[in-house]
Amino acid sequence: MTKETIAVLGGTGNEGPGLAIRWAKAGYPVIIGSRQKEKADETAAEINQELGIETVVGMENADAALAADICVLTIVAKAHQAALESLKEALQGKLVVDATARVKFPGAFPPDPPSAARTAQTILGDGATVVAAYQNVPASALRKDLDQPVGSDVLVCGEDMDAVEKVIALTEAAGMRGYYAGGLDNALVVEGLTALLITMNKHYKGHGTVQIAGLGK
Amino acid sequence: MTKETIAVLGGTGNEGPGLAIRWAKAGYPVIIGSRQKEKADETAAEINQELGIETVVGMENADAALAADICVLTIVAKAHQAALESLKEALQGKLVVDATARVKFPGAFPPDPPSAARTAQTILGDGATVVAAYQNVPASALRKDLDQPVGSDVLVCGEDMDAVEKVIALTEAAGMRGYYAGGLDNALVVEGLTALLITMNKHYKGHGTVQIAGLGK
Repeated sequence: MTKETIAVLGGTGNEGPGLAIRWAKAGYPVIIGSRQKEKADETAAEINQELGIETVVGMENADAALAADICVLTIVAKAHQAALESLKEALQGKLVVDATARVKFPGAFPPDPPSAARTAQTILGDGATVVAAYQNVPASALRKDLDQPVGSDVLVCGEDMDAVEKVIALTEAAGMRGYYAGGLDNALVVEGLTALLITMNKHYKGHGTVQIAGLGK
Repeated sequence: MTKETIAVLGGTGNEGPGLAIRWAKAGYPVIIGSRQKEKADETAAEINQELGIETVVGMENADAALAADICVLTIVAKAHQAALESLKEALQGKLVVDATARVKFPGAFPPDPPSAARTAQTILGDGATVVAAYQNVPASALRKDLDQPVGSDVLVCGEDMDAVEKVIALTEAAGMRGYYAGGLDNALVVEGLTALLITMNKHYKGHGTVQIAGLGK
């Protein structure tokens, strides 16, 4: 079966390349999207070099979205809404995976509703299918050892169960366990965990991850 | 060092006896509190019988609170506010550990702010010190095998760090890992996890628990 093409939009930060490299390694066609094509090309070249491949390409975000089946948003929280508005046309018909975790600073406090993924679905309208995932996965864990599981479980929230199952399969292809955890509003809790993890990491001087036990995976 | 006395208020349900039996087993003096002394006596007798001890006693909630150093609230969510108002005097000067997890039904959705623990602190005023913990620990896991760790980690939220450290020590005495996860408002996220776990348990037909990795415990 041909693997679907994944665009990682805003994919030149920390989280985006971490996810992209794991999907590229698992054989998915991957496009890095950025507001600037040059930055996207640079990240794509780094991933190709690390994996010894040539298949990852860079594009501007809208071109990347149009060329992909699945678009993963790893855009910084403060640019989330503006990016969705500017990419609304390009994202029609796509499965949009929103990895945004908003954190209130200073300190590190959980965000207010609605969830980022709910906001995305509202902006994009019924023509796109939004699923929330990957908000709590540390970039460092993704990049640590590509042959090992990441050690961070993923709570996948969405209303379209076919889309949810697709994202769980992508999650497992990237070396993580994915669990369906309810609809888009539940993603607010998952976003909130990021503030708690930041607090715990600071207090215990570690790199905390969330895992789920007892569900037979 | 003499162990402090723990009252488990609303301790005749599922969660309360599960925590109480683990603390009693660890050598803490434990009081079961209930609105009806007879029900409290009954639960205390069951715990004594299971452990082969005679030290656990039953009292009405207010008497239990007055006789204890640490009061753990395992009251059903819908009775939470009324119970705190009626126990306000008895809880002055106490360390109050709020285990309440509110879930919106039908379905299972995360609760609105403020967190139950923040509400408790507001009702009780500065004379009591509230810490949130144990909202996500399944009663079944507490009762399963008392010689084994519970397998559910505890996110402990509070503003008084001495109180937080005390609750983490209690958590570890009960066979769980406890992590400081920020102030009382962060407990809203922990409460929200209960709705996600209910959703996951239903979907995967399991008994999910949350664990934290990467922080060196």
